[in-house]
Amino acid sequence: MKSIFILVLGNTEVSLIPGISVAGATPELTKLTPPADAEYLFYEKPRIIDAIPVTPEGHPTPAIITKAARELANFPILVVRGGTYLAPLVPHVHISSAVGRDFRREPALPEFGEIVRMAKLLGEELNRTEIEELVIGESTPGGTTTAQAVLWAMGYDARTSSASPENPQSLKEQVIAEGFQRAGIERGQLKDNPLEALRQFGDPMMATVVGLALGFRKNVVLAGGTQMLAVSALLKALEEDMSRFMIATTKWVVRDKSATFIETAKEIGIITYAADLDFSKSEFKGLRDYENGYVKEGVGAGGATWLAIKAGFSPEEVSAKVEELYRRLMGMKSP
Amino acid sequence: MKSIFILVLGNTEVSLIPGISVAGATPELTKLTPPADAEYLFYEKPRIIDAIPVTPEGHPTPAIITKAARELANFPILVVRGGTYLAPLVPHVHISSAVGRDFRREPALPEFGEIVRMAKLLGEELNRTEIEELVIGESTPGGTTTAQAVLWAMGYDARTSSASPENPQSLKEQVIAEGFQRAGIERGQLKDNPLEALRQFGDPMMATVVGLALGFRKNVVLAGGTQMLAVSALLKALEEDMSRFMIATTKWVVRDKSATFIETAKEIGIITYAADLDFSKSEFKGLRDYENGYVKEGVGAGGATWLAIKAGFSPEEVSAKVEELYRRLMGMKSP
Repeated sequence: MKSIFILVLGNTEVSLIPGISVAGATPELTKLTPPADAEYLFYEKPRIIDAIPVTPEGHPTPAIITKAARELANFPILVVRGGTYLAPLVPHVHISSAVGRDFRREPALPEFGEIVRMAKLLGEELNRTEIEELVIGESTPGGTTTAQAVLWAMGYDARTSSASPENPQSLKEQVIAEGFQRAGIERGQLKDNPLEALRQFGDPMMATVVGLALGFRKNVVLAGGTQMLAVSALLKALEEDMSRFMIATTKWVVRDKSATFIETAKEIGIITYAADLDFSKSEFKGLRDYENGYVKEGVGAGGATWLAIKAGFSPEEVSAKVEELYRRLMGMKSP
Repeated sequence: MKSIFILVLGNTEVSLIPGISVAGATPELTKLTPPADAEYLFYEKPRIIDAIPVTPEGHPTPAIITKAARELANFPILVVRGGTYLAPLVPHVHISSAVGRDFRREPALPEFGEIVRMAKLLGEELNRTEIEELVIGESTPGGTTTAQAVLWAMGYDARTSSASPENPQSLKEQVIAEGFQRAGIERGQLKDNPLEALRQFGDPMMATVVGLALGFRKNVVLAGGTQMLAVSALLKALEEDMSRFMIATTKWVVRDKSATFIETAKEIGIITYAADLDFSKSEFKGLRDYENGYVKEGVGAGGATWLAIKAGFSPEEVSAKVEELYRRLMGMKSP
């Protein structure tokens, strides 16, 4: 296969703010979500914790979609630790262990320069191989809030999505307002200073994906929802030609009326793909609820599905494989 | 390019035994040699320490050959931390931070199973790409002693080479004898138990290369001298088909009369390639001394040269590029 799937792991303290993130059963558990997601792609279940990441209401991580697509299409996976509390217990490229700080109190990512440089070196090495396309997914609890902050700082009138059907927009906006006040900036003020937006409000996932995309000069699929809008906006402001980029996400992100995925993608000028997965007929509530706005995207689920479709599988086959994997997990739970 | 160069980094406490290793200006500095070698491939000089690794007498690391070959042939490099004291300040795949123990006192590598498993997972991912060939080099001070111990445990009547023109064979043999006594085994006793030989006397580089080679099912070039004989012997005992393997080294290893490179390779049944580099006309004593038995090999120098030759360059061009890089280093030293 001429493509490789890269999973970039990031943490930010923002996910610990109560109510911001449901990418973990509790705010504290969101610290473990990135490594656990990565591990689940390689093993029957994570190693760092004895269960897959779930929302507080028990909805399974979108890593299950990525894992399903990979079981079908057999694409190679490279895990990259952009910056997390803990290292995943799988082979992974170490870029940094810097976690994004709570930007209400201090700049989010003083280490952005080193992270971008390291990731760019990795991108340059990948560029020397026969690989023609990077499909870059992410696992970053709290990442839609950092994404919206970066987009606002750069002047985009964007609302990012959420893994919850009740997008906590007013909380996000309050957190961002506090961050802007702390930094002494207004919306749009960092339009021409993307790296300062990254430093003030970003997260290590964004810095890593930006670096990878700067180093790898062929096609890059940004596999994610509204978080990848922030990455796209950064790349555009860094004067990258957007025609070699695409965002691949899921229909659930596109349909999210609380967010501005399509509008903001158009404003940035990046094309998009939305995986047409359908869990409405699942026998499991945890999966059926994806149709009700839970989870939506993450761990490059849309991009992984896109790779499966390029390899000749249908969205129905990916959905069926997800069902099978979830049944297997449920079987493990109560043997 | 259909090949990728992988540099596996390993440390073993054995390099701290005075007189065993000259892969560093002092025994203590051998701890820094693996990360510094990796960094020198990416930067003008290492970051973890302000100079390239040298022997106690000042001969430059063979990383200079690898760097020269890469500057010519532009092959991709993936650094893998098999197990070192310190992480290199370059993007690298983390396999472990376990350092091989002094096998005179205790088993060298209780973590061998986890390291082999992790490296095998990485090999499997690489196997899913279009990459047809791994060229695996190493930087492991003290590694010829662990290699000889493993070969002896498995019944090979081998003598490994050394980065010194005065191969400390009697010291190596004394250290190995103490190790065998501690473990309660005799030469050849672990002939059919390669993993126990690895656990008792090996190092994290060996475990990592074995794992990579088990996971990647296409061609593997083991880029090193007598250390790669130990890896080959392990792979053969693990019932791998040796026809997909080759050892690529330098003429200096092949010519080393204190070692048994060709004989042992024949006994194992692995083909070999020896890079015909010639530093005899260098203006620098540090390089000319390679012709007098100093350094000889390391950091996959022979395998990197082989990649350059496959890309259409001559050994003379690689030698000339080494001269250029060394001149650049000397210029940096006294500006």
